[in-house]
Amino acid sequence: MPLAKLHVPAHLPLHTTRQLADAVHAALVQTCAVPAGDRFQLVLRLPPDGMLLDASFGGVSRGPDACIVEIAFLQGRTDDQKRALYRAIAEGAQDSGMRPDDVMVALLENDRIDWSLGRGQAYVDVH
Amino acid sequence: MPLAKLHVPAHLPLHTTRQLADAVHAALVQTCAVPAGDRFQLVLRLPPDGMLLDASFGGVSRGPDACIVEIAFLQGRTDDQKRALYRAIAEGAQDSGMRPDDVMVALLENDRIDWSLGRGQAYVDVH
Amino acid sequence: MPLAKLHVPAHLPLHTTRQLADAVHAALVQTCAVPAGDRFQLVLRLPPDGMLLDASFGGVSRGPDACIVEIAFLQGRTDDQKRALYRAIAEGAQDSGMRPDDVMVALLENDRIDWSLGRGQAYVDVH
Repeated sequence: MPLAKLHVPAHLPLHTTRQLADAVHAALVQTCAVPAGDRFQLVLRLPPDGMLLDASFGGVSRGPDACIVEIAFLQGRTDDQKRALYRAIAEGAQDSGMRPDDVMVALLENDRIDWSLGRGQAYVDVH
Repeated sequence: MPLAKLHVPAHLPLHTTRQLADAVHAALVQTCAVPAGDRFQLVLRLPPDGMLLDASFGGVSRGPDACIVEIAFLQGRTDDQKRALYRAIAEGAQDSGMRPDDVMVALLENDRIDWSLGRGQAYVDVH
Repeated sequence: MPLAKLHVPAHLPLHTTRQLADAVHAALVQTCAVPAGDRFQLVLRLPPDGMLLDASFGGVSRGPDACIVEIAFLQGRTDDQKRALYRAIAEGAQDSGMRPDDVMVALLENDRIDWSLGRGQAYVDVH
């Protein structure tokens, strides 16, 4: 039940956007024990004046393709799993032709009872 | 002070979208003691490539009208209130002609001090 | 590492939107010890049927320019810092010609390990 939101510049090619989304999901599967089928991603394409991002804060060099990936998922992942997640997303993004400096990630956490995947049922009650 | 975000496919009719929004709010009022006037909802309409949702994860069957409802609200609701919320949203969606399998819900929680409803005032100080 | 999302009506002039964004960032710097360079903001412009906001809940009077500012940032700010943040955002918005009643703020919190500002690195490891 991660819910990933990719905020990308509107000019980013659909192909690259999809590769980034694939990379984010693969990273979650690989590092955070997310089932392969557990994919829920939203892509928000924003115009230049919709992304006001500092060009260098945090010791990186952001360019016009900079993206922000926000992932809400279950609490309980360790710090090292999160570190591995960041690395895997950046590597996957790089494999897609993106610059790793252009991929920022923010995580939000909730509880098992906080998800209903459909049909009005709490996920915790169907698994 | 729930803030509900409805992520819906761009093709969903405005009428249906509004009914879903109404159902979400009615469910919050009915199950989570949200005041009837306490309605704050954002609707984000996304193109097909902006919603990458697994078709069946969680034991449901998602179709092209699948939506993701994200609700940020005050911590403190019980597990059973959340269960009732999911049920009520799905029932309301069904009454609007939507398939209950197409309505996913994710909850995020914060504290009373984390809301200002306007005028620069913390909500906790005006109630 | 605050990540601020400004949900504004699509008709809000770009100039005013930018001033609101500036006000939000200045308020974070002034009241919450956010570094001046630590600016990450997303602006989502929504049509009228994308913002379903009660006109008066919380004792304010919302108009057609009502906005919702959502900020995800590190836990640890005190209640008084949050109060000061709300005041500063409203004052900055007013200086930009907006009505303070039209600016709602919601805060979400996470942990230091929950941020990667780029390059696949956890922010906690590079600072």
